[in-house]
Amino acid sequence: MKSLIAVDWGTSSLRGARLDATGQVLEERAFERGILSVAAGEFPAVFDACFGDWMKTDGAMCLMSGMVGSKQGWREAPYCACPAGFEEVAGQLSWVEHGSIAIVPGLTCEHDGMPDVMRGEETQIFGALQLLGLQDALVVLPGTHSKWVRVQAGRIQSFSTFMTGEFFALLRKHSILSRTLPASDGEFDSAAFDQGVTRALRGSSLLHTAFSVRTLALFDRLPAAALPSYLSGLVIGEELRVQTVPAGTEVVIIGSEALTQRYQNALALRDVAAQRMGSEATWAGLWAIAKTLTSSA
Amino acid sequence: MKSLIAVDWGTSSLRGARLDATGQVLEERAFERGILSVAAGEFPAVFDACFGDWMKTDGAMCLMSGMVGSKQGWREAPYCACPAGFEEVAGQLSWVEHGSIAIVPGLTCEHDGMPDVMRGEETQIFGALQLLGLQDALVVLPGTHSKWVRVQAGRIQSFSTFMTGEFFALLRKHSILSRTLPASDGEFDSAAFDQGVTRALRGSSLLHTAFSVRTLALFDRLPAAALPSYLSGLVIGEELRVQTVPAGTEVVIIGSEALTQRYQNALALRDVAAQRMGSEATWAGLWAIAKTLTSSA
Repeated sequence: MKSLIAVDWGTSSLRGARLDATGQVLEERAFERGILSVAAGEFPAVFDACFGDWMKTDGAMCLMSGMVGSKQGWREAPYCACPAGFEEVAGQLSWVEHGSIAIVPGLTCEHDGMPDVMRGEETQIFGALQLLGLQDALVVLPGTHSKWVRVQAGRIQSFSTFMTGEFFALLRKHSILSRTLPASDGEFDSAAFDQGVTRALRGSSLLHTAFSVRTLALFDRLPAAALPSYLSGLVIGEELRVQTVPAGTEVVIIGSEALTQRYQNALALRDVAAQRMGSEATWAGLWAIAKTLTSSA
Repeated sequence: MKSLIAVDWGTSSLRGARLDATGQVLEERAFERGILSVAAGEFPAVFDACFGDWMKTDGAMCLMSGMVGSKQGWREAPYCACPAGFEEVAGQLSWVEHGSIAIVPGLTCEHDGMPDVMRGEETQIFGALQLLGLQDALVVLPGTHSKWVRVQAGRIQSFSTFMTGEFFALLRKHSILSRTLPASDGEFDSAAFDQGVTRALRGSSLLHTAFSVRTLALFDRLPAAALPSYLSGLVIGEELRVQTVPAGTEVVIIGSEALTQRYQNALALRDVAAQRMGSEATWAGLWAIAKTLTSSA
């Protein structure tokens, strides 16, 4: 393989990177062409418009992860069942164009009769573990639908989804609290964020703690400008409240700079240390999968 | 007092009843003129349009409860601090027109540095306790912002708000789950509701359990038509999960027929028996307050 086009195609965004024969990122691109913006049948055209020039490189291959493999995506890539290791995922690619463009499958697991799913995070996790040289970890991927993932001996044992980012957006934009909150989030207020996290960790349900945004404003206990950060702390703290983190566990947070920083701070309030990693995890994961193809070819 | 005009003026609705000299309801009216639909300064005109004819009765007096006493209402009626009994509430009316129209104050309490508030529920609670002949109870008022209220020796000791109805509406209308749910709620599915309640009672956070609406649909484990009832069970079950109900506690649910029935069913899944009461609680509460004025006059 002379060149890998690594693509992370999610619900609301499309990102790609061109990697050289040693796995180094040569160039990155991002488009607001998440799968929700692409009509059925138009995936090849959008792909061409975004990455067609990259694909003209002799021997170029593309691997894609994320919601592009869902029913609403380019082609449905059947889930791998947990526990699942790197080999299972790398061995179950769905080829869109044989030998040149493939989709990495997502994972599914089940707890107490409740299925759970991920698409894209598995690739980030395997990439991060490789970069960090870890075989066992608790991996956190914050976002619209945060994932908490237990990895043992390099295999993803189980995971749980938390609709944290989405609850924040719902409360921020559409709830009665939005009338109390300022129109713009403004500067991040770390003291108010910590206050929200602490409140949530001591609480028992966001259904109740969320109401404090309203009452603290009503009694002028928090200035309006601090409320978005406080609410962010409440929802992230609610997510953290219910996690079991055994002593000695390596905790890895994968995501954007700003969000992983908030989670690292929030976890510190539970006396849990964590390391952070960014988008390089995705490219490393796709690169590792690509290498298995080359070596087995 | 020859006639009481009892008014429940909330955020999104306005209801009134005309009671005779013995407290019997002669006539009821409802309008979609919640305080959010009334501009500042226009409360007297809206009141006149809705109840002006009733007020012409010789000796008629009007008592109002609900958000009409908030900053956004007709006039702000300062909160009574808990613990508060019927006498405190009845003794702190805010007169809008002296001797003829008054607003019943709401209540405030505080747990662990977090204030909580109610407006209107205090009147329903005192009315219900009178009708049921109770002095001690755990009173539940389900709704957009549900209240759980501890009453001892006829006094409201403390209460907590849960944004249950609002979370349901947010998830139903604005979240990613809304894409999975049918456009209309359709028939109530009690088995799916119970399944949602049970899931929530066994769970630890709605942030996680709410995602099961999506995954159960994704794997065809629940038909789309059952999902609204299942989601309703999830949010109500989340509210119930965190309540402490000591053995022997009298539990009273006050609200609409449909909603109190759901809560009664959900509580039964926790082996808690509860009795239900409807809007008569409001009229009984306002009537009882009116009687204290007449007797002290």
